[in-house]
Amino acid sequence: MEINVVNALTYEDFVKLFGNVVEKCPLIPAAIWSYRPFKDLADIEAHIREFIHSLPDSGKEGVLRCHPDLAGRDTQSGTLTRESQEEQSQAGMTTLDSAESLQMYRLNTEYKERFGFPFVICARLNSKADIVCQLSERLKNDRATERERAIEEVTKICSLRLRNIVLSDIQTKL
Amino acid sequence: MEINVVNALTYEDFVKLFGNVVEKCPLIPAAIWSYRPFKDLADIEAHIREFIHSLPDSGKEGVLRCHPDLAGRDTQSGTLTRESQEEQSQAGMTTLDSAESLQMYRLNTEYKERFGFPFVICARLNSKADIVCQLSERLKNDRATERERAIEEVTKICSLRLRNIVLSDIQTKL
Repeated sequence: MEINVVNALTYEDFVKLFGNVVEKCPLIPAAIWSYRPFKDLADIEAHIREFIHSLPDSGKEGVLRCHPDLAGRDTQSGTLTRESQEEQSQAGMTTLDSAESLQMYRLNTEYKERFGFPFVICARLNSKADIVCQLSERLKNDRATERERAIEEVTKICSLRLRNIVLSDIQTKL
Repeated sequence: MEINVVNALTYEDFVKLFGNVVEKCPLIPAAIWSYRPFKDLADIEAHIREFIHSLPDSGKEGVLRCHPDLAGRDTQSGTLTRESQEEQSQAGMTTLDSAESLQMYRLNTEYKERFGFPFVICARLNSKADIVCQLSERLKNDRATERERAIEEVTKICSLRLRNIVLSDIQTKL
């Protein structure tokens, strides 16, 4: 998709296309539509990153709380968003054995009790072993450090989702 | 629902219960969960209002762009959220005749072209005639005035949705 095609989208089509680049936060792409015309994909990404970073701490935590647990209830019941489903599946989170499931459940629970938001990591960039290792490591952070660390992951997820949308569209057109 | 019951909810249950008090913006209730314990319902409302007002202009427009058109495509195709469906139905927006539908379509289109976000009004507090009248009137505003005007309506909708959730719960418990 050429950037001039993106710039020509109505806000309705823009939100329909990019509405879940930040999990369950259509508000964010809907907001940055105000900054058209965009120079390129990196410009869209930069506006999203800037918007998230401009939120108060509660807002950043709100963004995190819109994310599902990795290998959690939604993964088991099939109620993940399509994007999360693909990402968790790719990282092996949908095919854990019972010992691994229990380990993830315990670590997720400990993490949520400690921070008041779920553990977020860019599953596409991490193996199952990396995820367990990072979850254990990041549990040692203080809340402010971990909030920023998790938001970094949100922007990585967003970047890959954006690319995926644009790339799929090009493939459809070819 | 007593406020201490609300204050005892996990963020997951809080977002499940209050996730759509601002249309398609679970980020907002997810964010203000950080401010527990709440004193009462009015305190929750005040935090939501404050959060929305603290957003940059683009963010306020983002909130508005998460709303459907009144008597628009989603109304016709049955893809409104449950809350919007009830509100639009109560204001007679789901049973317009063809002349009324055309009038709403034309006014909505003009409004969206002028402002870059949809016309938002608290349908529960307005009759069909009020809605058409206000839509025509508010088209005369400048963008900054109209953005604030529409955000006022968002907070009215939010207030009624909050009350509805708490009241339903009490009714279920009685």
